[in-house]
Amino acid sequence: MTPSAAPLDHVRPGVDRSIRVFLDRQRPLFDDPQLAVLLSTAEDFLSGGKRLRPAFCYWGWRAAGGGEESGLLMAAASLELLQASALIHDDVMDASDVRRGMPSAHRRFERVHAESGWHGSAEQFGEGVAVLLGNLLLVWSGEMWRTSGLPAEALAVAQPVHDHMLTELMCGQYLDLLEQAQGESTFDGALRVALYKSGKYTVEQPLRLGLVLAARGRPAWIDRLCEQYGRQIGIAFQLRDDILGVFGDPAETGKPAGDDLREGKRTMLIARALAEASDAQAEAVRSLLGAPDLDEAGVERLRSVIEDTGALAACEGMIKSYLDDALHTLDQAPIDETARTALAALAVAATARRT
Amino acid sequence: MTPSAAPLDHVRPGVDRSIRVFLDRQRPLFDDPQLAVLLSTAEDFLSGGKRLRPAFCYWGWRAAGGGEESGLLMAAASLELLQASALIHDDVMDASDVRRGMPSAHRRFERVHAESGWHGSAEQFGEGVAVLLGNLLLVWSGEMWRTSGLPAEALAVAQPVHDHMLTELMCGQYLDLLEQAQGESTFDGALRVALYKSGKYTVEQPLRLGLVLAARGRPAWIDRLCEQYGRQIGIAFQLRDDILGVFGDPAETGKPAGDDLREGKRTMLIARALAEASDAQAEAVRSLLGAPDLDEAGVERLRSVIEDTGALAACEGMIKSYLDDALHTLDQAPIDETARTALAALAVAATARRT
Repeated sequence: MTPSAAPLDHVRPGVDRSIRVFLDRQRPLFDDPQLAVLLSTAEDFLSGGKRLRPAFCYWGWRAAGGGEESGLLMAAASLELLQASALIHDDVMDASDVRRGMPSAHRRFERVHAESGWHGSAEQFGEGVAVLLGNLLLVWSGEMWRTSGLPAEALAVAQPVHDHMLTELMCGQYLDLLEQAQGESTFDGALRVALYKSGKYTVEQPLRLGLVLAARGRPAWIDRLCEQYGRQIGIAFQLRDDILGVFGDPAETGKPAGDDLREGKRTMLIARALAEASDAQAEAVRSLLGAPDLDEAGVERLRSVIEDTGALAACEGMIKSYLDDALHTLDQAPIDETARTALAALAVAATARRT
Repeated sequence: MTPSAAPLDHVRPGVDRSIRVFLDRQRPLFDDPQLAVLLSTAEDFLSGGKRLRPAFCYWGWRAAGGGEESGLLMAAASLELLQASALIHDDVMDASDVRRGMPSAHRRFERVHAESGWHGSAEQFGEGVAVLLGNLLLVWSGEMWRTSGLPAEALAVAQPVHDHMLTELMCGQYLDLLEQAQGESTFDGALRVALYKSGKYTVEQPLRLGLVLAARGRPAWIDRLCEQYGRQIGIAFQLRDDILGVFGDPAETGKPAGDDLREGKRTMLIARALAEASDAQAEAVRSLLGAPDLDEAGVERLRSVIEDTGALAACEGMIKSYLDDALHTLDQAPIDETARTALAALAVAATARRT
């Protein structure tokens, strides 16, 4: 199957416009020259991205019978603000220098401090401002969701899903930090992180939000579709992300090559590699994974271990299997036919090899 | 006038109970042994505090004719979660070791990491978890506010005030970091930080939320009371906090002596001191303020400068003048008499010397 960008392209203009409308509403407060940089940096971080989360929300809404509506696009677009917040905080937590090929938020503010010759630690200033900017985007995401213009009854039904998603997201990121620190690499642990850290809030919950908003309720078929299509695609998406984090082209991932290896991420790739590793291979993983000064040769060595142990092929197999199961579930769901086609294409696009 | 704790004591049991009820609702997700520590640390951070923000919200509600209602206490108590979130993030941003006489959140998780002999940097782990815990409390604060049980019409009228408060809070904290970094000490700058960083979200906005919820609207007298009583008491509260940060007893502030001086906070005390300083005194401020290794002798030297330049007396005079103006406004407001008495006592309690 060839990935089609059509269901993303369909949503993008409305999402972009919604973000502009919301930020314009905030603009008066940021006329203050000292505050302007917060808004402009937020805008910058919101200008990129595939709009995957809004797309799952939008096509969920369409699947349950919703039509073209600006309120839904506003609500869906608010998920991009949540994502921008998570990325900015993530980069602080991982001490990452680069995001989408540009300096990460904390590094940008660190540089402003250093170039201005201000007092105190430039690094601490950069991190502090990035925490606050992430907070701002987090609270704005909630505000944008609630002021989307959707009917109060629809929002009331969806709000518990939204609340749960946020709690789950913070817990998932915590589990990610914990697994990394504990350095354990079990299949279960890796799967749990893949599911909670990213899978759920990338696919399952955005999809559920759209479905519940349109259905104004939560019939059993919605949870079945979310769990058996959304969850599977969410995990497959994260597995693909893990593979890109090790083998991806920096020009495309926007991150330096092998960044996940340098950060010591405990992904399914690593768990699979360790399960099949020879003593020498296991020793290479132990000594190189998470080494802050990991060089290109070290990255290459780890890549070889991941390929030679069959871990890469195993993860590709898992992605294919999750995708097949999800598409099968999707076929059975009592949903709108245009949305069915779009959600199938979206599933493929979210989990496909990028070339 | 003697400060009376009665209006705080009246609110505390209901606020404590509301926090327990809300956290109990979150508990099922945290049965997971790996996640339990997030909830227990949140509980720990929520067990202290004077409950000042809920008290201003509650007495605002009573002032506009609201009665005893569990929904209002839930909504008011949600402000304590916001405050806990801000404190946890603040301590990360300021690299503070201590909060309320106990290790700050990031130091606690740093210690867990170090004692467990985990991989990677313990400091980075501690900061990452503290950012996430602050995020969790931030989103829970919003959830608790919305699910308080108050009528939808009341919440709908108050929600824009709530949204605005959150944006203002993040901007205020940013201005605080910026002033500290730029190292400028103007009266205007210090006043702006006092107002936005803390004053508004400690007094003016909690009070406005309570008033607007009860009035189900925002008549002109509410904004007048919030601006001419709430804002004045908010600034006076922050000026008192600044004085305690320099001269306060660590047993009472829960922070090491002179912590604000070590962090280089650009408060009104400093702005006033510099405006009247001799060359030698100004040089002492320049060389000692913000020095990470500032010792007891350095703290004493800065205290002397602040006293000898008359800055301490000037700030005490400002507090008294703000308080007098606020109480005068309060006398004129068309509000419930019990609430008027309580708000007067609360104003005194929030700005009084602690002994």
